Amino acid sequence: MSSLIAVNLPDNSYNIAIAPDSLSQLGEQMRPLGLGHKVLVISNPEIFHHYGAIIVQSLEQAGYTVSSHLIPAGESYKTLDSIARIYDTALQHRLERSSTLVALGGGVIGDLTGFAAATWLRGINFVQVPTSLLAMVDASVGGKTGVNHPQGKNLIGAFYQPKLVFIDPQVLRTLPPREFRAGMAEVIKYGVIWDEDLFTQLEKADRLQDFSDLEAELLQVILTRSCQAKADVVSQDERESGLRAILNYGHTIGHAIESLTGYSRINHGEAVGIGMVAAGAIALKMQLWTEPEASRQNALISKTGLLTHIPEDLDTGAIVESLQMDKKVKSGKVRFILPTQLGKVKITDEVPNDLLGQVIDELKQ
Amino acid sequence: MSSLIAVNLPDNSYNIAIAPDSLSQLGEQMRPLGLGHKVLVISNPEIFHHYGAIIVQSLEQAGYTVSSHLIPAGESYKTLDSIARIYDTALQHRLERSSTLVALGGGVIGDLTGFAAATWLRGINFVQVPTSLLAMVDASVGGKTGVNHPQGKNLIGAFYQPKLVFIDPQVLRTLPPREFRAGMAEVIKYGVIWDEDLFTQLEKADRLQDFSDLEAELLQVILTRSCQAKADVVSQDERESGLRAILNYGHTIGHAIESLTGYSRINHGEAVGIGMVAAGAIALKMQLWTEPEASRQNALISKTGLLTHIPEDLDTGAIVESLQMDKKVKSGKVRFILPTQLGKVKITDEVPNDLLGQVIDELKQ
Ligand SMILES: NC(=O)c1ccc[n+]([C@@H]2O[C@H](COP(=O)([O-])OP(=O)(O)OC[C@H]3O[C@@H](n4cnc5c(N)ncnc54)[C@H](O)[C@@H]3O)[C@@H](O)[C@H]2O)c1
Ligand SMILES: NC(=O)c1ccc[n+]([C@@H]2O[C@H](COP(=O)([O-])OP(=O)(O)OC[C@H]3O[C@@H](n4cnc5c(N)ncnc54)[C@H](O)[C@@H]3O)[C@@H](O)[C@H]2O)c1
Ligand SMILES: [Zn+2]
Ligand SMILES: [Zn+2]
Repeated sequence: MSSLIAVNLPDNSYNIAIAPDSLSQLGEQMRPLGLGHKVLVISNPEIFHHYGAIIVQSLEQAGYTVSSHLIPAGESYKTLDSIARIYDTALQHRLERSSTLVALGGGVIGDLTGFAAATWLRGINFVQVPTSLLAMVDASVGGKTGVNHPQGKNLIGAFYQPKLVFIDPQVLRTLPPREFRAGMAEVIKYGVIWDEDLFTQLEKADRLQDFSDLEAELLQVILTRSCQAKADVVSQDERESGLRAILNYGHTIGHAIESLTGYSRINHGEAVGIGMVAAGAIALKMQLWTEPEASRQNALISKTGLLTHIPEDLDTGAIVESLQMDKKVKSGKVRFILPTQLGKVKITDEVPNDLLGQVIDELKQ
Repeated sequence: MSSLIAVNLPDNSYNIAIAPDSLSQLGEQMRPLGLGHKVLVISNPEIFHHYGAIIVQSLEQAGYTVSSHLIPAGESYKTLDSIARIYDTALQHRLERSSTLVALGGGVIGDLTGFAAATWLRGINFVQVPTSLLAMVDASVGGKTGVNHPQGKNLIGAFYQPKLVFIDPQVLRTLPPREFRAGMAEVIKYGVIWDEDLFTQLEKADRLQDFSDLEAELLQVILTRSCQAKADVVSQDERESGLRAILNYGHTIGHAIESLTGYSRINHGEAVGIGMVAAGAIALKMQLWTEPEASRQNALISKTGLLTHIPEDLDTGAIVESLQMDKKVKSGKVRFILPTQLGKVKITDEVPNDLLGQVIDELKQ
């Protein structure tokens, strides 16, 4: 059981390889890419503890000279300062233009490593080995790399494509369940915006709340179809000038909720889950979507153990105001991605403010 | 008297506009590019003192909202830290993806600004207004941007193309003469490696040591043909995989001399001048080049007030060793760019070490 997805871009095409228990084959898989012999693995202590040895061994067996650089876990380390530390290590090991950074970790490690690779010696090679579900289905595909500014997320960065995305689904066994569900929110998103078939396959599962709930086969389907969905979208819009916007489905109200709850009480995936419920309700009220499909979406979000209501202590006015502040707002109009039927969405900035307030009120609990 | 050079690249073509006394037309020239209304001008205090007001006024008259950010002069400020300060200002003025950074300065300001533009919001617009001769004919064309690492020059950076390079030769009147001559070294380089006609036009001038020596017409020719040469080369090799190497003519031994003299006693242009004399001498000894042409090159370097000898206190062994350390060395062989006739060079790593030592010894004085 294995899948290979080609991400076709004008200049920098690459493959996403998905195969269970494949971690020990990373070195072999990299060989045909013709990369230089030096590899620097970037990870965090927890993940490297689990998977560092097998990755390093696999690379060394394939003939690479391997070193590693660990960054403490957490979004708070996704900074320019962590990048400067990676540069120091790159220099210490005398990496060359032909050398490769391997990102072994979740989205934080992937974004950091990609940006370091994009900017060391004006660009060296970069391989993604995502270990969180979110990184597998979202962060590792699409070429966005970067770090946070003290005053805003992902403000610093570059578009930079990996040479390979290498996914071993079995590493998800050590991922905390709440992180698993955060990734599932993005998977459901792909079902609603792009792939009805993925959606119905998710509906068939009894449980979806953790890695242990899923048959290996369903997990393979989830990863393959999600990566394919993201690859389809980003290869049609490499630099985020149009179509990519649909990937923000559920993220508009989601971001507002994340930010108003201080990015801790409610995590990204939970906020996106709520955001999708809200976007569905807006689409329904605007008669763009049907009640049965909206209910099916919400049932799937529930089954995954994600939230479907807005915390009642959040002020409706504050949410609407936060939406207006979003960097994607053009001339005061909030842009929404709204479902029209399972697998299809439209982009609109025509959502009336009172309808928005009404939907938010109704979703409070 | 004005020239427009098109730099044709697969994705990001742009123009180099060269016209005397054109500084006040920058805003107008930018208008057809369809950039957003916010502009942040990056400069240093000295240059901004001379030309800031006219640039800001021109931009404001064209309808832009303009702010500025000054960085102290000098290579020692070409750091990641200066980039972080630019980010802070970009955030403070809420720059958007459609906003533009204008680099008003020499190569240091250009490299810093380009890298900040490449990495803020994953890439915003960028316009070069080079004010040193070196920046006009070299640094501002080709898309290399970046900063120094404490342990090495230009190790951090990105390839990122400007939307426009806007050159007003008249700003060179305030450039210190030694900086002028540093730029002339690169101009002579283009004559030898690419454009025999440029070379012969330089030969015709009586004096070439400072801005005040040059007729406006000759200056226009120098800038136009130099930019055209660099544009020709980089558009055939955007990411430095082959042809661009010829731009390193004179830089191989030049870098060694710069580094062994601590980057202060002998500046980059002077080192390149010596490096060209040395490369010419090697080519002559290898019977690749003729004596009359080598003499013409050396006479032109002399006339420009550049050095043609290696300082005698430098140890020949140390120079050869330093060459071996260069990052462009592949498997121990030093790569040289050697002239074969005026306007043509070849790339070779077949220079015997003893011949190299002999040439260095002979050039000492
Ligand atoms: N580049 C993009 O296109 C893109 C897209 C979406 C999100 N992101 C970014 O991704 C980041 C979020 O990614 P994330 O959710 O993976 O967060 P993360 O990288 O912080 O990982 C979440 C937690 O799970 C742990 N972890 C990951 N894999 C594990 C495993 N196999 N076993 C045990 N523990 C494991 C990590 O150590 C961390 O503590 C954010 O910074 C976000 O901005 C980027
Ligand atoms: N990106 C590239 O392709 C490329 C190519 C060559 C060099 N460079 C970089 O360019 C830098 C060197 O550029 P540079 O020689 O312009 O150095 P610089 O930017 O330091 O300028 C030299 C000095 O001249 C002053 N100056 C510049 N224009 C002036 C004017 N019109 N009037 C008065 N003073 C003026 C500056 O303030 C500075 O003190 C180096 O950092 C080098 O790495 C980059
Ligand atoms: Zn998301
Ligand atoms: Zn140079």
